[in-house]
Amino acid sequence: MKDLDFMARAIELAKRGRLKTQPNPMVGCVIVKNNKIIGEGWHKAYGEAHAEINAIKNCKKRFGAKKALKLIAGSDVYVNLEPCSIKQNTPPCSNALIKYQIKRLFCGTLDPNPKINGRGIKLLKKAEVKTSVGLLQDKCKDLNRIFFTNQKQSRPYIILKIAQSIDGKIALKSGESNWISNTKSRRDSHHIRSRVKGVLVGRRTAEQDNPSLTVRLTKKELGLSKNDVIDQPVKIILGNLKKSKKVNKIFSNNSKIIVGSRLSARQSENVEYLKYKQRNFLKEFLQDLLVRDISSILVEGGQKTLDAFIVNNLFDELILYTAPLFLGKGSKEALTLIAPDTISKSKKLKMVKVERFKDDIKTTYYNGNF
Amino acid sequence: MKDLDFMARAIELAKRGRLKTQPNPMVGCVIVKNNKIIGEGWHKAYGEAHAEINAIKNCKKRFGAKKALKLIAGSDVYVNLEPCSIKQNTPPCSNALIKYQIKRLFCGTLDPNPKINGRGIKLLKKAEVKTSVGLLQDKCKDLNRIFFTNQKQSRPYIILKIAQSIDGKIALKSGESNWISNTKSRRDSHHIRSRVKGVLVGRRTAEQDNPSLTVRLTKKELGLSKNDVIDQPVKIILGNLKKSKKVNKIFSNNSKIIVGSRLSARQSENVEYLKYKQRNFLKEFLQDLLVRDISSILVEGGQKTLDAFIVNNLFDELILYTAPLFLGKGSKEALTLIAPDTISKSKKLKMVKVERFKDDIKTTYYNGNF
Repeated sequence: MKDLDFMARAIELAKRGRLKTQPNPMVGCVIVKNNKIIGEGWHKAYGEAHAEINAIKNCKKRFGAKKALKLIAGSDVYVNLEPCSIKQNTPPCSNALIKYQIKRLFCGTLDPNPKINGRGIKLLKKAEVKTSVGLLQDKCKDLNRIFFTNQKQSRPYIILKIAQSIDGKIALKSGESNWISNTKSRRDSHHIRSRVKGVLVGRRTAEQDNPSLTVRLTKKELGLSKNDVIDQPVKIILGNLKKSKKVNKIFSNNSKIIVGSRLSARQSENVEYLKYKQRNFLKEFLQDLLVRDISSILVEGGQKTLDAFIVNNLFDELILYTAPLFLGKGSKEALTLIAPDTISKSKKLKMVKVERFKDDIKTTYYNGNF
Repeated sequence: MKDLDFMARAIELAKRGRLKTQPNPMVGCVIVKNNKIIGEGWHKAYGEAHAEINAIKNCKKRFGAKKALKLIAGSDVYVNLEPCSIKQNTPPCSNALIKYQIKRLFCGTLDPNPKINGRGIKLLKKAEVKTSVGLLQDKCKDLNRIFFTNQKQSRPYIILKIAQSIDGKIALKSGESNWISNTKSRRDSHHIRSRVKGVLVGRRTAEQDNPSLTVRLTKKELGLSKNDVIDQPVKIILGNLKKSKKVNKIFSNNSKIIVGSRLSARQSENVEYLKYKQRNFLKEFLQDLLVRDISSILVEGGQKTLDAFIVNNLFDELILYTAPLFLGKGSKEALTLIAPDTISKSKKLKMVKVERFKDDIKTTYYNGNF
C-alpha cells in the first residue's frame, strides 16, 4: 500500500462520523508501521474523543498496551485534517502524537480554525516529527465542506433547494405549488433535511404554504436503529412570522424555532426571535445561527428568499429538482435575479452530480466560493 | 437461446441501418432452424433490399443455395417489423417468406403504414405460416419512433432543442445568446443535426442570429469514412425569410432551403417557398415537409417557434441543455406557454435520458403521444 491508500482509508473512516460530528469536522486516522496498519480510528460524535486518540486506543486493543507503545513509536500517522493544538472538549492531539513518539505525520489539509491553522504542525515539527501536508488535499477539503465553510465564512454551510418545472417556474399564479416534483424527489428532499442542522424558509412561504418543515421519514429509511432518535432540524424563518390559525404546523410540535426579522417580538419557550437593525441583515443572521451551532442549513424558498441568498452570494450548494412539465406564462418564477451585463460575466456554478427520480432530475451544483 | 434473444438480435441488426434508411424504417431479420441462427440481415439503406431478403441471401452465402433452400423451409423467422405485402422499390417480403416455406414468423409490431398494417401477416396466415405479433413490441416501436410518427401522424418526427440557464432563460435582453451552453454541448447538438433530415428555425431567429444551420463536425467525429459524404440537413424556415446582408449564412452554401409562410415569394434555385392561406399553417407545413421525404426535423428556436410547436402538441422529443448559470429578470424566457389551470392538469413529459457535458446537463424527454 502507498501513502495515498492510507490517506484514502483515513477519509473512509472519517465518513463514519457523518451527521454526528457537526459542528466538528469528520476526521479519520490510520497508524502505519512497516507498511501495515497497526491502528485506526475516527471522530465518532461531537464532544467525544478525536480520531488520533481513537486510533491509538485501537492499536492498544489489537496488540496490548505495552506492545502498542513500542509499535507506535517510530510509526507513520495519516489523518485527513491537521491534529489539533488546543484543548477544547478533549486534550490536544498533537501532544498525544508527540508523546507516543511517532516518526512522520501526513495530513490532508491544515485546520481552517484560526486558533489552530498550522499550529498543530508547528508543535509536531518542533518535536522533530516529520510532517507532510496536502496528501489528497481536494478530497480532504471536500469531505469537510461544512466545517471549512463554518470556519472560513463564519456562517452555516448553505444549501438552496428549488423544485421547478422545465420552464423554471415554482408555482402557478394561484400559489399552487404542491406536487410539482414527484414522491421520490420529495422523499429525497426529506433526506437532505435530515442531514442539516436547520431548515429555513421566508415568512411569506411559511404563511402561504403552512409547512411543518420536519423530516418525515422512518428510522429505517434514515438508516437509524430502533434506539436512535431522529434529530429534527431547527426551523428557521426569515422575516417576522407569528403563529396563527393559518400558520400552525411550524409551531405544532415542540421543536426549536428561530425567527430573524427587523421587528421585535415576544419570546416564547421554543421560539427565539432575533431582531436586526439594518435592512439587509442576512449575513448577521447567518452568523448568529452558527453561534447557535447551526452549522448547516437548507433553504427551501420562496422566490424572494432564494434570490436574497444568491444575490448576496451566500450559498454553497444549489439542489435543483426539475419536473417534466411546463407551468407557463404568469406562473411564479423560481428566481428573479438581476440579469448580468453579458453572458460571459454571469456567475457560473460547478455541476457536481445529477440523479434521476423517475421523470424528475436532481442536479447538485456547488458555488465556486469554496 | 430463446425467442426473446432472437428478436433482440434482429433489433441489433436493424440498428446498423440507422440514418441510412430514412424515410424507411430500420429492420433486422434472423432466420432460425433447430435453435440456431442460419441467416441474418438488415435493411441497409433506402431503396435497397429489405431485411428478410438480405437474411435469405446471407443463409445462401453460408450454406450454398441448395442447402439454404432446405434449411429455410420449416424455419422460424424473427423480424422487428411486419414483412411488407406490397411492391415498393422491391418485391413484397411476405411473398418471399411464403415461397421459401418458412414455418413460423415472429414480428415485433405490425407495420403502421396503412397500406400494409396487418396485410403482411394476413398473407402469411393464408399460406399457413404460423404468426406471432408483439415480441419485444415496445423496443421494436421505440427503435422506429421516426417511422411510426411519420406513418401515424403524417408529419416528420419532431425534436425540439432548448439551451437554457438554470432559471429557464435562453438569451439576455440584448439578444445575446451565444455561449450559454458549453463547447461539448454545442458539439453534441451538431451530432443531433447530423441525425435529422431538416433543421428548423423561426424567421426572427434567422434574422437575429444569422445561423448557418449546418453540421460542423469532421467525418471522423461523425463516424464516417473518407469516401462518405456528410449529408447536410435541409434548412427550414418558419416565416418569410429573405436573403440580405445581415442574413446570408443560411444561403451561403448551396444546400436546400424550404421556407414556409403566408406570403408568396420568388422561388430560386435552392430555395423552395411554400405559401399558406390560414394563420396557423404549422400542421400543413409539416405534412408538406414529410411529402418531401423530410422524415425528421430538429427545431432550434426561437421562443415563439418553440411555443408554437408545444402549444399545438406538435413534438415528439424535447432536448434540454441546462447551463450552470443564471440569466435573471428581463432576460428572454425559453418558453412563454399559457399556464395550466392546476398543476395536476399540466402536461407531463417522459424523461428518458440524462447526460453530462462538463457542467452542462442534457435531458431528453419524450412527449407522451407516441
